[in-house]
Amino acid sequence: MKRLLASLTMLVTATTASAEEVTTYTLDNGMEVVVIEDHRAPVVVHMVWYKVGSADEPVGASGVAHFLEHLLFKGTDVLAPGEFSATVAANGGSDNAFTSYDYTAYFQRVAADRLELMMQMESNRMNNLRITEADVETERQVILEERNQRTENSPNALAREQFAAALYQNHRYGVPIIGWKHEMEDLSLQDALDFYDLYYAPNNAVLVVAGDVEPDAVLALAEQYYGVIPAEDQLPVRERPSEPPQRAERRITYVDPRVSQPFLIRNYLAPERDPGAQEEAAALVYLAELLGGSPFSSDLGQALQFDSQTAIYTNASYSGSSLDTTVFSFAVVPSEDVTLSEAEAAMDQVIADFMDSEIDPARMDSIRTQLRASEVYALDDVSGLARRYGAALTQSLTVDDVQAWPQILQEVTAEEIKAVAAKVFNRDQSVTGWVVSEEAEAM
Amino acid sequence: MKRLLASLTMLVTATTASAEEVTTYTLDNGMEVVVIEDHRAPVVVHMVWYKVGSADEPVGASGVAHFLEHLLFKGTDVLAPGEFSATVAANGGSDNAFTSYDYTAYFQRVAADRLELMMQMESNRMNNLRITEADVETERQVILEERNQRTENSPNALAREQFAAALYQNHRYGVPIIGWKHEMEDLSLQDALDFYDLYYAPNNAVLVVAGDVEPDAVLALAEQYYGVIPAEDQLPVRERPSEPPQRAERRITYVDPRVSQPFLIRNYLAPERDPGAQEEAAALVYLAELLGGSPFSSDLGQALQFDSQTAIYTNASYSGSSLDTTVFSFAVVPSEDVTLSEAEAAMDQVIADFMDSEIDPARMDSIRTQLRASEVYALDDVSGLARRYGAALTQSLTVDDVQAWPQILQEVTAEEIKAVAAKVFNRDQSVTGWVVSEEAEAM
Repeated sequence: MKRLLASLTMLVTATTASAEEVTTYTLDNGMEVVVIEDHRAPVVVHMVWYKVGSADEPVGASGVAHFLEHLLFKGTDVLAPGEFSATVAANGGSDNAFTSYDYTAYFQRVAADRLELMMQMESNRMNNLRITEADVETERQVILEERNQRTENSPNALAREQFAAALYQNHRYGVPIIGWKHEMEDLSLQDALDFYDLYYAPNNAVLVVAGDVEPDAVLALAEQYYGVIPAEDQLPVRERPSEPPQRAERRITYVDPRVSQPFLIRNYLAPERDPGAQEEAAALVYLAELLGGSPFSSDLGQALQFDSQTAIYTNASYSGSSLDTTVFSFAVVPSEDVTLSEAEAAMDQVIADFMDSEIDPARMDSIRTQLRASEVYALDDVSGLARRYGAALTQSLTVDDVQAWPQILQEVTAEEIKAVAAKVFNRDQSVTGWVVSEEAEAM
Repeated sequence: MKRLLASLTMLVTATTASAEEVTTYTLDNGMEVVVIEDHRAPVVVHMVWYKVGSADEPVGASGVAHFLEHLLFKGTDVLAPGEFSATVAANGGSDNAFTSYDYTAYFQRVAADRLELMMQMESNRMNNLRITEADVETERQVILEERNQRTENSPNALAREQFAAALYQNHRYGVPIIGWKHEMEDLSLQDALDFYDLYYAPNNAVLVVAGDVEPDAVLALAEQYYGVIPAEDQLPVRERPSEPPQRAERRITYVDPRVSQPFLIRNYLAPERDPGAQEEAAALVYLAELLGGSPFSSDLGQALQFDSQTAIYTNASYSGSSLDTTVFSFAVVPSEDVTLSEAEAAMDQVIADFMDSEIDPARMDSIRTQLRASEVYALDDVSGLARRYGAALTQSLTVDDVQAWPQILQEVTAEEIKAVAAKVFNRDQSVTGWVVSEEAEAM
């Protein structure tokens, strides 16, 4: 509670919420460096973000970006397999990695005086990975098991894969990040090495260091460890296929006896945050809040969960963080004895009513305040800030875009929201998915 | 009529219908040569088939296979733009070309004594194309206009594109052969040249010569003109991404005010003819005939067009000619006052009834006889035979497969048809498409 009050006090004084101290450099080999200072605790987050993700994979090798992420924890010319993470742990830190459509990132959180060790190890595995057929065999089993856990054993995850595959007609966002199982089974040492050799290079990477550090010192270390790695001159221009005009809604009923609770989703194609052009994305953040944010105040929550009791859960969601065209999503879980058809009709009525009426200025104010507060809270989370910059810089945004975003969010108008809603709520560019345990529920 | 009688007489004597005289060679540079003798008229069909089609295109450059096909009629080191076709015409012949998912082919039909001239010109443009930026500008307009005519101006074609894009989740059969318009607009000279340099090579080509020729003489000419062209050593292994398990039917209503007559389709993924394994494909040929061949004898025709008058048109179709997983399709055009929903239910009832009942042996005999007769007619069409071999050899089949096919068709059993129907009629691997002029018709 004390923390909340402190934050609210800050709220009054900060003209924009982006008050973090950020310094950037570019090394001679093209590697970008972002330093975020936060001296409240003697810890540091060290991250290397590669501008490559699953949507950059060669056709037929889905999953290789994530597979390679796993293999980076095997040995290098100087590190034994597993030694990287063991060293981090021995130094009291934690480490991990993640792969998305647009990026692959590696990070450690350690005491600030261990930064050099992290850089030494992380820079080493950018260029000196030594993986064997045996590593590939073992790790392929690991990722297949990961897919089993996350996807094959989850009817909702399987359904989401089907919906994504139908939403994108041309772009590889329609292919799951973890990969199609049959392609994962065929991923080879060569697939991993080809991907590594081409994409893991300083001119395709962003170093983000956040915490109790001085920018000059970070730069000196970055030059020492990363600056000596040669740029990859074969690095391809990052250009993905874009969607053709989509001309008809796709409807899918996913049936799986393991489904415990029927629900429906509607996914629309939606614009993402683009460099120097984040206004539509900002308006979509409001749109998601207005339609399906809090169940107590959103249109869907009010209408379906309270007024008519049609649904036990409603949601609208949007994240503008994406290199290419992204998704605006609705989800509705109907109440018992309400059919999916009725629930969908109720949802569409809410959308139609929204389009036909004025947006209440009081709700605009309330969302504006929420967003401002969450920006202030974000300042408290140095890892989160580091992720924010890493994601943005690997998804074509600049540091300026990141810092402008909170203010752009503050300036969204009701008219802009209506305009972008009219553009996005085009059923021709949507997938409607029903998830049921048996065919009979889809009536 | 006289011709029909002659054919029916042949029917009695031919044990299999594949009575064509076919001789094959492989040149030292890997080019395959197929000679089909037919001495009834002093003409020859000369075709070069490349084992590359739209499904081999790099992502983002859809349409480049077809674009290049157009550009092949521009100049070479010795031929002026347009000179190729003009020379064919001046020699009393005709020429053309076509692009499919799996192949691109060029052909001329001329007097038999002009064969050498055709080889001279065709072999020249395999390796010596000279295209300019101006050619690319002009021809890009031509293919865009072709797309306008064939696709943009045709609601049915636009609908088919949407249905195909939804049927394939991973394979490029979901991308139109002519290309997505926005990608066609960006096709460059370099895109065309990259594709040409990599794929237009003797080790990726099949020469088919059919007509009044002697195999030895054709081989001598082929060696003289094509045999001297070096093989492409960078030719990639032809491996396309395959489909993941498809887990839910996709339903699409395509609305276009230009639609004059509502109709529906159902497309199922279906196995293609594979080398040494054509039995399932053969059974699917029967299945299409039984369910939706002639309106007078097929199950759909009988039930929907005659008994219930639900539909004014019904069809089931299947062509096993495909390198990868292909499509078994239904189409139904409902009668006036019949909704698409009613028509679809009637269609599904026919499919269900088919699965629940025995196949009438008399109908099996009738289809067997039809297929045998059409094989005999095929012998009369030397261009058609040439196409048959060219398509097969660029879709992974062998000459033996082509020659075995008529007999395999004769040996299909009712049990095999039922088995493959049970496998193919899996709604999870299907798209159901409704095409209407206004939303209200889709109720």
